[in-house]
Amino acid sequence: MSDLIIWTWDWVPNGPRGHVRDIRLRWALEEAGLPYGVRTVPIADRGAELVARQPFAQVPFLEDGDIRLFESGACLLHLAEKSETLMPSDPQGRADTLQWVIAALNSVEMVTVPWWFIGLQKPPENPMAGWLGQRLQRLEDVLSGRDWLAAGRFTVADILMADILRVSTLRRQLDPYPALGAYLDRVLDRPAFAKSLQDQLDHFAAADAARAAT
Amino acid sequence: MSDLIIWTWDWVPNGPRGHVRDIRLRWALEEAGLPYGVRTVPIADRGAELVARQPFAQVPFLEDGDIRLFESGACLLHLAEKSETLMPSDPQGRADTLQWVIAALNSVEMVTVPWWFIGLQKPPENPMAGWLGQRLQRLEDVLSGRDWLAAGRFTVADILMADILRVSTLRRQLDPYPALGAYLDRVLDRPAFAKSLQDQLDHFAAADAARAAT
Repeated sequence: MSDLIIWTWDWVPNGPRGHVRDIRLRWALEEAGLPYGVRTVPIADRGAELVARQPFAQVPFLEDGDIRLFESGACLLHLAEKSETLMPSDPQGRADTLQWVIAALNSVEMVTVPWWFIGLQKPPENPMAGWLGQRLQRLEDVLSGRDWLAAGRFTVADILMADILRVSTLRRQLDPYPALGAYLDRVLDRPAFAKSLQDQLDHFAAADAARAAT
Repeated sequence: MSDLIIWTWDWVPNGPRGHVRDIRLRWALEEAGLPYGVRTVPIADRGAELVARQPFAQVPFLEDGDIRLFESGACLLHLAEKSETLMPSDPQGRADTLQWVIAALNSVEMVTVPWWFIGLQKPPENPMAGWLGQRLQRLEDVLSGRDWLAAGRFTVADILMADILRVSTLRRQLDPYPALGAYLDRVLDRPAFAKSLQDQLDHFAAADAARAAT
């Protein structure tokens, strides 16, 4: 049995399938070629047991032998230490990867998720729209000059940034940013993404089948 | 001369003084007892030279000898590797610190900053208010049981979380969360915070004096 265990929900409705954040960890581990298992917590019971593992009552969280940690971004940085595929080991390559992981979480996703969340309520104007446009333009400028975010090569930062940008409502905003759109296509074209996406869809399809059988 | 250089603005108006994010790096380095220098970029020129150093045209960024990196969260994790005061060196202590740094950036600040930003426009209802309340309640639950976020002791995660929560409009929301309020007071009571705050205020006061003299 593998020492690496990704914890995720036992079941979710169709909407979030393919977007539950365990996919970030699956994808990273597929890229790294490291074996891992997947275990589940019941989404119907976000109680004390879950909160003891994840204080915001979310998934994923990760077990690595005796080590436990939550937050997909933290799990990605933890896994990146295990594989040169995810993060170069030289000091500037590490710093470059780290800064782009944090930029994805705190400069980009800090804008895209609230923009998406507020947009669900269909306001006449989304107060996050201007800020979103500024961030996408900054990324467009960066990616007009290179293929990958960090260290001149694919890293775990690309997994994270692509998973943030591929949300369908957001992806439909990318026409004015052709370099960013091409970057997203480039990252999502990786076989490890296709495998992790299919694995997540299969995981929840199996949960449907198990429910139907009871 | 120190190998560690914090880069920040040459000047800012009164409003953001005390809250420019270089304070996170100053505070961490004061806690660690590591020598550092401070250098500046002109806030009036957010052009190509700045963007080459910080692609979102922000501060701070950090030099550590030949290594350069941006994003305050990334700089904090980089500095944490240098000091047991900032992050324990055992594997679970590291993971615990890492997960709470990322939680501060991606589960808490991802809600607080958009809430603050939208609030500036004084909408009748802030669409981020409900989400903010949920996050603060989760933190209240965590901090009802312990004094520090990670690893049973002060870490760099507390610097980051306290800097996020001390924003005045947000701090005024903390009355319903007494454990969180007491936690914030506890972290901000550290002498290294007082020193870094005063140093930032002095830095910008010196910039005023230099302007007045020309």
